[in-house]
Amino acid sequence: MSRRVVVIGGVALGTKAACRVKRIDPTTHVTLIDKDDYISYGGCGIPYYVSGDVADHTALQSTAYHMVRNEEFFKTIKGFEALVTGTLVTRIDREAKVVWAKGKDGVEKSYPYDKLVIGAGSRTRDLGISGQDLANIHAVGNLEDAMEIKKLVAAGQVEKAVIVGAGFIGLEMAEALADMWGIETSVVEIGDQIMPGFVGPQMAHMAQRSMEENEVNFYLGETVKGFEGDEGAVQRVITDKRTLEADLVIMAVGIQPNGELAREAGLEVGPTGGIVVNERLETSDPDIYAGGDCIELNHAVSGKPGVYPLGSLANRQGRVIGTNMAGGSATTEAPVGSFVVKLFDKSLAGSGLTLKGAEAAGFDAISVSMCQLDRAHFYPEKELMFLELVVEKATKRVLGIQGFAGSGDAMVGRINAVAATLKYKPTILDISNLEFAYSPPFSSAMDIVNSLANVADNAVDGLLHSIPLATFEGLWEEGDCVFIDCRERPDSTPFCEKFPGKWNSIPQGEIKHRLDEVPKDKLVVLVCNTGVRSFEAQINLREMGITNTVSVQGGMATLKTWGSKVTQ
Amino acid sequence: MSRRVVVIGGVALGTKAACRVKRIDPTTHVTLIDKDDYISYGGCGIPYYVSGDVADHTALQSTAYHMVRNEEFFKTIKGFEALVTGTLVTRIDREAKVVWAKGKDGVEKSYPYDKLVIGAGSRTRDLGISGQDLANIHAVGNLEDAMEIKKLVAAGQVEKAVIVGAGFIGLEMAEALADMWGIETSVVEIGDQIMPGFVGPQMAHMAQRSMEENEVNFYLGETVKGFEGDEGAVQRVITDKRTLEADLVIMAVGIQPNGELAREAGLEVGPTGGIVVNERLETSDPDIYAGGDCIELNHAVSGKPGVYPLGSLANRQGRVIGTNMAGGSATTEAPVGSFVVKLFDKSLAGSGLTLKGAEAAGFDAISVSMCQLDRAHFYPEKELMFLELVVEKATKRVLGIQGFAGSGDAMVGRINAVAATLKYKPTILDISNLEFAYSPPFSSAMDIVNSLANVADNAVDGLLHSIPLATFEGLWEEGDCVFIDCRERPDSTPFCEKFPGKWNSIPQGEIKHRLDEVPKDKLVVLVCNTGVRSFEAQINLREMGITNTVSVQGGMATLKTWGSKVTQ
Repeated sequence: MSRRVVVIGGVALGTKAACRVKRIDPTTHVTLIDKDDYISYGGCGIPYYVSGDVADHTALQSTAYHMVRNEEFFKTIKGFEALVTGTLVTRIDREAKVVWAKGKDGVEKSYPYDKLVIGAGSRTRDLGISGQDLANIHAVGNLEDAMEIKKLVAAGQVEKAVIVGAGFIGLEMAEALADMWGIETSVVEIGDQIMPGFVGPQMAHMAQRSMEENEVNFYLGETVKGFEGDEGAVQRVITDKRTLEADLVIMAVGIQPNGELAREAGLEVGPTGGIVVNERLETSDPDIYAGGDCIELNHAVSGKPGVYPLGSLANRQGRVIGTNMAGGSATTEAPVGSFVVKLFDKSLAGSGLTLKGAEAAGFDAISVSMCQLDRAHFYPEKELMFLELVVEKATKRVLGIQGFAGSGDAMVGRINAVAATLKYKPTILDISNLEFAYSPPFSSAMDIVNSLANVADNAVDGLLHSIPLATFEGLWEEGDCVFIDCRERPDSTPFCEKFPGKWNSIPQGEIKHRLDEVPKDKLVVLVCNTGVRSFEAQINLREMGITNTVSVQGGMATLKTWGSKVTQ
Repeated sequence: MSRRVVVIGGVALGTKAACRVKRIDPTTHVTLIDKDDYISYGGCGIPYYVSGDVADHTALQSTAYHMVRNEEFFKTIKGFEALVTGTLVTRIDREAKVVWAKGKDGVEKSYPYDKLVIGAGSRTRDLGISGQDLANIHAVGNLEDAMEIKKLVAAGQVEKAVIVGAGFIGLEMAEALADMWGIETSVVEIGDQIMPGFVGPQMAHMAQRSMEENEVNFYLGETVKGFEGDEGAVQRVITDKRTLEADLVIMAVGIQPNGELAREAGLEVGPTGGIVVNERLETSDPDIYAGGDCIELNHAVSGKPGVYPLGSLANRQGRVIGTNMAGGSATTEAPVGSFVVKLFDKSLAGSGLTLKGAEAAGFDAISVSMCQLDRAHFYPEKELMFLELVVEKATKRVLGIQGFAGSGDAMVGRINAVAATLKYKPTILDISNLEFAYSPPFSSAMDIVNSLANVADNAVDGLLHSIPLATFEGLWEEGDCVFIDCRERPDSTPFCEKFPGKWNSIPQGEIKHRLDEVPKDKLVVLVCNTGVRSFEAQINLREMGITNTVSVQGGMATLKTWGSKVTQ
């Protein structure tokens, strides 16, 4: 008798697992059950559908060759035996190897399985905020949500939108609403930076600033206390600090894995609420697989459990499950947590741990940041790229990298390259030697990643004493220190004129001969354009016995992007 | 007494080594000697200087912060004690630890060293072709050459140019001349494809075709026999098959490392003519370092000796030498041979071994190729990307990857990511699990690299039987076979009408029900748009007992870019 496979959930993981098992063993009998009517859509594309970049929701449901992945498609092309949509799975009976599910008519039916796949996904966390059930408050959980949001904005009914949460979905939705629909958009975030957990404060600050330049307002460190509206629809968002008008609210407060069904069936569920699986993606019951947003995975670098709601992982996991159900032996790997988000004409990406994440995982770590042009400086088209590297001090092990740039592909490519090595526990030396394909239209002879590793090496070895921008800003506001601009005079002159006495110019090439102008009794803050010459000046001064210096990471180019008061 | 460092050669490697040792130990006494007047320029930028993309040669000599790296710069800013240009090193006396060099005045002087750096570079191979000394025949060896070429083209004196050699320099110069100056440009290559040794025939063919669309002519498999000109300047290039008119000839026939000085000093020189070094970049004399184009390195994957004339490697090697001369212990790694070349609006890149290279290195290998959109198919901006993966059959070890695409950064980023893993001897599984930062504006949920690894896995496991495009073309011309287009009817109809009887349409979803239309007695060639549905059809047919099928790698999209007769 042919193997009966039941799949719960048909967005990314479930359909992929089902297609794969069918591809390897076409005799498999496949039943796919989903609580929604729309299945197999690119959920990550929702912000682009709402913005209008993607005109029609069927595009999110289509294959690359323009076939809509509907019931017909999965039955005819993929050969699924049964496709049961609009039907909620209520219980897994592991003893009887049967799944119970209730359709819209309220009738409960049973579906016997030999192998079961749980791709139950996740849901937006329910914060229980007063008024959250008012109309026009939406999560971005599925295609139905997206269609409702788009209907509202396309009807011109939205003038002011508030987004709760400054993670991926929140920021992508902010861009969608502000950019394409011209809606006055505000983001309220409980943390003290955007993308908390994903990038450090410096990258977050630069990205936030670039979004502010695109008319998105941010309220950080604020908690939403309630929603109000007079006629059943939201009109106001009440935070602990202010009231914001809003005729649309997007709840992007993070997700929670749908692990309940598994937990009730006695399967192991971890501290995150996600289902525990092994590398074959088997749950604690070897006849039941799970993958996608509803499982918990241990991070490759920190070892800590986490949930990774990414369509890319779900697709790869689905393939592994399909192979294993067909008798194969495929495995997944611990995720390194690579991510990228497009924010208007900028991009923010990363992989591995942030400095804060590294510290939380028990590493004694530092991070260094730098900026450099993304191609040969003499090549006509080029842009600044900002990278931050996180390393363990004692071992020089590289723990993570984050980046911010205009030219997204070039920056993301570098993040991906470092990410590819993370499972091998690379050291600074490995990254310093990492070979990037070189040609002036694509990179500098000394690639920014190699340079970044060298900066980290200098910092760990105590050759470089540098400060991040937030420290610079604090010193600028009220530090007992002297600022020395190591750039050539034409670049430093305007600043010297604007801040007489406070901002001093000594080009790096002259510093050894102008030692009497360098104070010995207070902190000397060395600045140049990107941090290279200020580092060199620091070495020149140390050689002369002057060690009371710090070099500003990333220099004026970074301060400018960061929005320092010095550059305004 | 301070350490005396003498550096021979001041383009990339030499200046970097000198700057680094100075940075770590400023008491070092540095003497840099170069045979040319211009030093420390970005040699890789020469084609962009010739094209006019880079207006002035001083840009190639400048730092990212617009300082010209001239004698003044190295003395004042970098603190070199002596900079001796226009001076040829004639002999290294290792016994006396002295370098002898002859200036333009013919006077020979000696320079004592404690540590010596050989960064003697490379030169264009001398093929001894008759007439090669005629005027307007130029190699692209140094900045002087570049300035002469640019003077000629900028003066409007060149109508027809012939480039000998279709490697990096040859193709970049072809673009420079054809694109920016509108010169009728032909490339003569002795091998049967462009970029021999760097990419396989399929990628080479696609790249050549894209350059032909930009008005560059190619003559492959032709040997230049001589140059002729009536008044001392070249006018004709004589190959074994034709005569080409030319008032400018660029010799881009590959380089030869300048290892003679080292060999004469009794240092070990390898089979390539490059100086042999260890991972600390010490020659067989531990007081003498060498790096850049004049050394020989063993390839990380093949283990075979080779020469890697890349500014990127030279820069990193220079840093290592500088560190070691200052008493540190830095090391380099075996190169994986990553490269990229921009060809008009397309890019060609790779890392590791080609299929031919793998076979030459003794691997029993196969390669698979595929094409896929570089971003989510529903995202408005996207382009096709073509990748080829080379794997060892028995171990499934990944040996190399090559790519061709319009969106260079996205493709190069993927090559770099796979390249970053090559030293860890990755298997197909490692690449299948490689984590790429995912978001619709940057990639597909199933990244092309992951898909490519899966295709390779299917091919090695015998699940997929596919053919490369050249094989398809042969079958199309004179194969005893039937072609079945597995795409939906609207896509296949025009081809069925154009090739009645020869080209048949059976959409993949229908194939299981139309078995009687599939011949059992001859080869069935399955084609779709990118190779996904034809693979699926192959599985459908195998399930029904029909195994006389092959699937066309990369499908119609690749055939079109490749320039197949079917698509014309």
